[in-house]
Amino acid sequence: MVYRLLALDIDGTLLNSSNRLNRQTKEAIQYAQKKGVAVTLVTERHFHSAAKVARALRLTQPIITHSGAFVSSSIDDPVYTSKIDHSVLMQLAEFLEAYPCQIQMSHERLSISNRPHQKNLIAKMTIGMNEPLFYPVTYVDSLSQYLLENYEGATDVKIKLDDQKTMNDLEKAINDYFPSLNAWRTGSDSMTLVRQGTSKFNGLLFFAGQLGIPLNEIVAVGDDLADAEMIEKCGLGVAMRNAVDEVKAKADWVTRSNNMDGVAYMVKEVFRKQIRVH
Amino acid sequence: MVYRLLALDIDGTLLNSSNRLNRQTKEAIQYAQKKGVAVTLVTERHFHSAAKVARALRLTQPIITHSGAFVSSSIDDPVYTSKIDHSVLMQLAEFLEAYPCQIQMSHERLSISNRPHQKNLIAKMTIGMNEPLFYPVTYVDSLSQYLLENYEGATDVKIKLDDQKTMNDLEKAINDYFPSLNAWRTGSDSMTLVRQGTSKFNGLLFFAGQLGIPLNEIVAVGDDLADAEMIEKCGLGVAMRNAVDEVKAKADWVTRSNNMDGVAYMVKEVFRKQIRVH
Repeated sequence: MVYRLLALDIDGTLLNSSNRLNRQTKEAIQYAQKKGVAVTLVTERHFHSAAKVARALRLTQPIITHSGAFVSSSIDDPVYTSKIDHSVLMQLAEFLEAYPCQIQMSHERLSISNRPHQKNLIAKMTIGMNEPLFYPVTYVDSLSQYLLENYEGATDVKIKLDDQKTMNDLEKAINDYFPSLNAWRTGSDSMTLVRQGTSKFNGLLFFAGQLGIPLNEIVAVGDDLADAEMIEKCGLGVAMRNAVDEVKAKADWVTRSNNMDGVAYMVKEVFRKQIRVH
Repeated sequence: MVYRLLALDIDGTLLNSSNRLNRQTKEAIQYAQKKGVAVTLVTERHFHSAAKVARALRLTQPIITHSGAFVSSSIDDPVYTSKIDHSVLMQLAEFLEAYPCQIQMSHERLSISNRPHQKNLIAKMTIGMNEPLFYPVTYVDSLSQYLLENYEGATDVKIKLDDQKTMNDLEKAINDYFPSLNAWRTGSDSMTLVRQGTSKFNGLLFFAGQLGIPLNEIVAVGDDLADAEMIEKCGLGVAMRNAVDEVKAKADWVTRSNNMDGVAYMVKEVFRKQIRVH
């Protein structure tokens, strides 16, 4: 089998646990690209943050960001988006404002959050605050008021609420009243919502369609539950040694950990004998 | 919202319960195409059988056949395939031949089946026998022997076994030993297997990638459980009045039944006000 597309998760996969990109990893990606293999990233990160990694790796392809909701090589001209519609966001904001929760609505340029009800939640919620120039988090008094004046969709919505019982009720209500959304718990006090059909695998499959590369010619590498679907369904699914067990169980192959240059090792093993593709 | 791709299931959706394509339906599809909307079929049918319907509708796009395993506008030059690999088929044949089951391995040109163990199974298993010229079903003594001499993948494998207890064991064993396959029961005595990643929705999404049309600009119409995913995840998901309840629950809209020209009614309602797209 000849593989023509290499799809890589960033955190826990390409980067080591100090968030560094090793020289070996960079060289391995160059090696794969020289063999004619297209290389892309598939990540939960927002576009600006993922694009930095893509630049460091000198990738030439669009990347799959925001958990599959935004596929692009530039902030202005996406090849694919799968966002929550503005009309659904409006209804969601009005619905959520009845609960004492922290809400963060994001798209590729910025995040909007309601002012925190509880002081100790601020630090936890300001995801991306370490790079304010690239990805501003703006606080507003009323999200529904903001949305009235700003016609925007969202790649995702994050909710935080420090009361597990209410959170359970909220999750059930969202599943009942917002069938166009896919909601999952990221902890006992937190939840993420995306549009139905938004996933890392679906973003990758759409992009593969653009390249005309079928599933069995794709290598997918990752470590987290969000990577399980692409690892299971692509031609060669590779789990990192540091991956969660569910992901390893779905993989065709387990490579070394992210702290042991697992991606570089895998690339060498898989592509060494493969002739150049076009 | 402007919709640019219309994806239609065939059986129970486009065709009425006498397997006829009504004039109203044909005219409605022409109407959508004249508005610049791309139209495709998404079906469990094999390619030749689906291509007949496509010709009757004068479709110009590739169609998604074999439950998403074969996307093409001709038998020879698919834009996408997602087949069970020959090496997996070999292992599967050897494994299954220990059981007293009827096995049918298919791809876009033909089906291969082992000689039936029980006489009364013949009629049930000869799917496609009504069009032998287009889609031959060949019986062989040993599938594993046949596969040794024929290097082919399969779009799907169907299994029939008239003993529910053994069938349950078999299903469990396949899930354990063949992680690259996706197996589901189609009845107490029957099971279908495809490659992980093969589904009507995934075939459609890959094709949408080729056209550069994102999910929220797709209308998907169907009636069966296999249509539920595309109805849930596409921009506008439409269930037929005759659809199963699970499908209706995931739909944005329920149109008239297939015997009441539900597709034609839906097309007029959705595309009447839409200006021509490019």
